[in-house]
Amino acid sequence: MGKILVIGAGGVGSVAVHKMAQLQAAGRDTFAHIVLASRTVAKCEAIAQSVKERTGVTIETHALDADDVPATVALINQVAPDLVCNLALPYQDLAIMDACLETGVHYMDTANYEPRDEAKFEYHWQWAYHDRFKEAGIMALLGSGFDPGVTSVFAAYLKKHYLDRIDTLDILDCNGGDHGQHFATNFNPEINIREVTAPARHWENGEWVETPALSHKQTFDFEGVGEKNMYLMYHEEIESLKTHIPEIQRIRFWMTFGDAYLTHLEVLQNVGMTRIDPVIYEGKEIIPLQFLKAVLPEPASLGETTKGKTNIGDIATGIAKDGSEKTYYINNICDHEAAYAETGNQAVSYTTGVPAMIGAALILDGVWSGEGVFNMEQMDPDPFMEMLNQHGLPWQVKELDGPLDF
Amino acid sequence: MGKILVIGAGGVGSVAVHKMAQLQAAGRDTFAHIVLASRTVAKCEAIAQSVKERTGVTIETHALDADDVPATVALINQVAPDLVCNLALPYQDLAIMDACLETGVHYMDTANYEPRDEAKFEYHWQWAYHDRFKEAGIMALLGSGFDPGVTSVFAAYLKKHYLDRIDTLDILDCNGGDHGQHFATNFNPEINIREVTAPARHWENGEWVETPALSHKQTFDFEGVGEKNMYLMYHEEIESLKTHIPEIQRIRFWMTFGDAYLTHLEVLQNVGMTRIDPVIYEGKEIIPLQFLKAVLPEPASLGETTKGKTNIGDIATGIAKDGSEKTYYINNICDHEAAYAETGNQAVSYTTGVPAMIGAALILDGVWSGEGVFNMEQMDPDPFMEMLNQHGLPWQVKELDGPLDF
Repeated sequence: MGKILVIGAGGVGSVAVHKMAQLQAAGRDTFAHIVLASRTVAKCEAIAQSVKERTGVTIETHALDADDVPATVALINQVAPDLVCNLALPYQDLAIMDACLETGVHYMDTANYEPRDEAKFEYHWQWAYHDRFKEAGIMALLGSGFDPGVTSVFAAYLKKHYLDRIDTLDILDCNGGDHGQHFATNFNPEINIREVTAPARHWENGEWVETPALSHKQTFDFEGVGEKNMYLMYHEEIESLKTHIPEIQRIRFWMTFGDAYLTHLEVLQNVGMTRIDPVIYEGKEIIPLQFLKAVLPEPASLGETTKGKTNIGDIATGIAKDGSEKTYYINNICDHEAAYAETGNQAVSYTTGVPAMIGAALILDGVWSGEGVFNMEQMDPDPFMEMLNQHGLPWQVKELDGPLDF
Repeated sequence: MGKILVIGAGGVGSVAVHKMAQLQAAGRDTFAHIVLASRTVAKCEAIAQSVKERTGVTIETHALDADDVPATVALINQVAPDLVCNLALPYQDLAIMDACLETGVHYMDTANYEPRDEAKFEYHWQWAYHDRFKEAGIMALLGSGFDPGVTSVFAAYLKKHYLDRIDTLDILDCNGGDHGQHFATNFNPEINIREVTAPARHWENGEWVETPALSHKQTFDFEGVGEKNMYLMYHEEIESLKTHIPEIQRIRFWMTFGDAYLTHLEVLQNVGMTRIDPVIYEGKEIIPLQFLKAVLPEPASLGETTKGKTNIGDIATGIAKDGSEKTYYINNICDHEAAYAETGNQAVSYTTGVPAMIGAALILDGVWSGEGVFNMEQMDPDPFMEMLNQHGLPWQVKELDGPLDF
């Protein structure tokens, strides 16, 4: 008889709550009570209505400013959930963790904390909560989305079943979807643009190698999508994977971008519209990137028109059980239109919301447990991998002829 | 003993006031008293200081919100000028004309009135003041900048001295300057982008022909600059020239833009940053184009780094005095660095500010006079053309082999 409080009513929150409700409708009691809270209660209500129509399940909704720790504490005390599932903005991770500590309730999120005034994607802020969560006897599970999340579990799965030692790991994130807009981001534009315009960093031979944003390009033929240009980027799971699978010599993260997207981004950077420091406009401080977000299409509005597939996975090279060097590619392919038909959200939200539901289910069912702060790859990958196959994100492993040649 | 009130302390206001002060310093009494007013009095004071340093002339400064007609009336009454020279934004033309009517003082500007909420460049609003100016016994001179202004006088000059009948007129505006920035506009970005993104219109065989913005391109070799792509655009002097030189069959206006400028503009349009309707941001209405202006470089800040030349002029084909068909090209070439060295402003401000000074001088000296509202081409071009040569904008006329082949 699990009770979950989900905070955040964007596309990811919508998918996660729909999937939780599907489990309830199927007779499992993991998500016996589902509560959804967000700054804008109308967004929660719209999701609740869709969930009711699609699954027959009723969810409870609340208005909550998750930056306000006492308000979050009060809502947790009122709702008394077994787990708080944070699907709000990364800025709010620490505030929600504080509220969980104060109320003694497990915590889970899908993206690491970022300070608002600086695009820094680092785990140290959240890892610093480990001892306090341990003392409180509760668990914080960080990054149960697709990347981080599924990509982290993929690495743990390869390590458990295929490779005794992983030497190199490449995470390849391809979105082959076309939303028919000149320019739009597939999730929160502010978070997306902060991430894409940050310098690229990868881990190699015991140190970070930093290169300018979008300066390293490779072409890769993605199954279900075709050939795409992908660019070396920093992504938060590199930091946790190099910590928890310490033998890895090199970890890189690649994301695909079309030329038009990059041209738009370059221009927006050139003119200063991606700045995250405030400018004075009519006597008021306004952050250009946040204003840009207000002008760009709402990512949620793109679902209806987006066609194509995502293809995200890990390529790992290392020493197999038999002592030989092997390279494996493990990935999921997700269809935008199918995702939209099922939950009213496209694949970028779907691929993050489903793993959020799975991480939450494993905590609520007691399959994954611990006291302290944990990343995904520290958990047993098998039950998570099984649920991916059952709940809409089937994966495949194949052996490649050899390591990547770049 | 002329007394002038200049409203507007941007680049054009700065150039105009510097040039007026040069005349005063040279012993002419046309601009015996120079008063400069602007919303931001600090901008006036900075110009006054530069004028003092460069010419030794002291100018008077005032703060004025030119949207506020009673405030403008009060300042006109206090200053008692012989002429109000409006170098503020085009939005303020009507308010300042109202103040001139109320105080019985001559009016002059460099750009036609535009409503803030619609990018319409039409003279009818200002022409509607004709009878009232006539009854008040005062003159309003519209558009005494370069284009409109010099380009209008060029047409009148060709008509007076070279061509009995003008059949076709093309105005070619080339800015070959390089400011070293990714993207910036050479004058007020808001006004510039409104103009560039408006549909192109030209006058042909008695009617307006409208085509999409930036859809007609021609390459032209500009003396002092080189080959440039220029684009058909609408520009306000077409409307007055087709009215005052009614035999002209076709009038077109062309402006040069580099590929990078157009790419930036296209992206900014695509994402909605050039919109002039408000979006709601944090509960407040903000017009994206005005916010963009706050993020882009101040045009005034570009002067120091801008190199290259402008080349603006008219090409007219018609019937010469001897009855044969002739084509003449009349133009001015202006150097950004020389303009900056002289007045602290680059050539785009210089080429507008100098004609503003000349138009003002001709009114104050009684050389140009009238009761009502007038466009530049209605005045005798000769004294204006002589002053262009004397005050920094020398021009040349040459006969071309034949009409333009496009």
